[in-house]
Amino acid sequence: MRAVVLLSGGLDSSVLLYETRDSWREAIALSVFYGQRHYREVNAAEKIAGALRVPFRRVNLDDLRPLLHGSALTDSSVPVPDGHYQEESMRATVVPARNLLLLSVAAAVAVAEGAEEVAYAAHAGDHAVYPDCRPSFIEAVGLVLRLCDYRPVLLRTPFRDWRKQDIVRRGADLGVPFDLTWSCYRGGELHCGTCGTCVERREAFELAGVPDPTRYQERKE
Amino acid sequence: MRAVVLLSGGLDSSVLLYETRDSWREAIALSVFYGQRHYREVNAAEKIAGALRVPFRRVNLDDLRPLLHGSALTDSSVPVPDGHYQEESMRATVVPARNLLLLSVAAAVAVAEGAEEVAYAAHAGDHAVYPDCRPSFIEAVGLVLRLCDYRPVLLRTPFRDWRKQDIVRRGADLGVPFDLTWSCYRGGELHCGTCGTCVERREAFELAGVPDPTRYQERKE
Repeated sequence: MRAVVLLSGGLDSSVLLYETRDSWREAIALSVFYGQRHYREVNAAEKIAGALRVPFRRVNLDDLRPLLHGSALTDSSVPVPDGHYQEESMRATVVPARNLLLLSVAAAVAVAEGAEEVAYAAHAGDHAVYPDCRPSFIEAVGLVLRLCDYRPVLLRTPFRDWRKQDIVRRGADLGVPFDLTWSCYRGGELHCGTCGTCVERREAFELAGVPDPTRYQERKE
Repeated sequence: MRAVVLLSGGLDSSVLLYETRDSWREAIALSVFYGQRHYREVNAAEKIAGALRVPFRRVNLDDLRPLLHGSALTDSSVPVPDGHYQEESMRATVVPARNLLLLSVAAAVAVAEGAEEVAYAAHAGDHAVYPDCRPSFIEAVGLVLRLCDYRPVLLRTPFRDWRKQDIVRRGADLGVPFDLTWSCYRGGELHCGTCGTCVERREAFELAGVPDPTRYQERKE
């Protein structure tokens, strides 16, 4: 079984890559640059794939950036909000139809590479703010991938009912090099420690009872 | 009502653009370059949008080309087959998960531009050879677009049950400048007249009883 793993370079997808290998699948790691200001995550992805000796593919969709205006992740005129992921303000970090785009690219690569699966690290914590992480979306896109080419592409989302701390715990068991992963939306030298994804990252390590190797710019109050 | 119209620059999507305007919608034409060797179609698309004074957006996904190997449309080592569209040999012209990619880009643009609809010119003649034109795929992708962002994106496929000659007839009624459209997969100076899409184009004009303004390289035997 071969699987194309959507690897952002963040916590969840890095654990997914290790989990994919652990489940005896041959993995191809795929990172997509869509104009996100935290480009560092794509470099992180490459390092993680390298650590696991998994083939790494990078796709540049930067040309989409001017069309996908209005998100704090791709439009430098929109500030990245501080705060907790679940808050309304986090809507600013939604990139139009992003996961559908990423999954489409992954499906195309899977067909071209003869892989049977696409793996994607949506998890339960994402549902509230991101429509394209919800179970209804995952189910619908799973059907589309089965129909989009001659051979069905299967969508694998083993973390769909997990909380982020469950993913961190699993990652610790699998020996994921957490220090290589990148979450921060601001994409500075260090993780800022205050944007939604940094707040969630910190919390997940705490709740999982796993030491957090991340150096944050802002210490916790 | 605003609609993002996927405009390849071929017959079907050009008629769709005119039909969209005729149905009192505000249209945005969207062309995607995905490494197809018949790049001429993107230039044709721009001309057609210009003729109708519709805003034109072009997205370059050329970076995908090396990943989407194996199709005659994107891989110059694979010859474009001659013959009829319905034949098995036409499988060589399938680009992995292409329409899913195009529709995902269109959905993202629709969300970013505040458009309610994506319009796409799948028609009944395409079903046999192309999995991503079949009614089951269209239905599934329609559901995905409704779920991929906060606001549902509606998928409009008015030609889904039409034959190509029906589209030509409708285009003639709407005054579509057929001479500006480009179909040929070979992408030479003139339409080759023998590849699947040229054969189908010729036939559709004949069956519709509409004069064909196209200059073909190969005259019909």
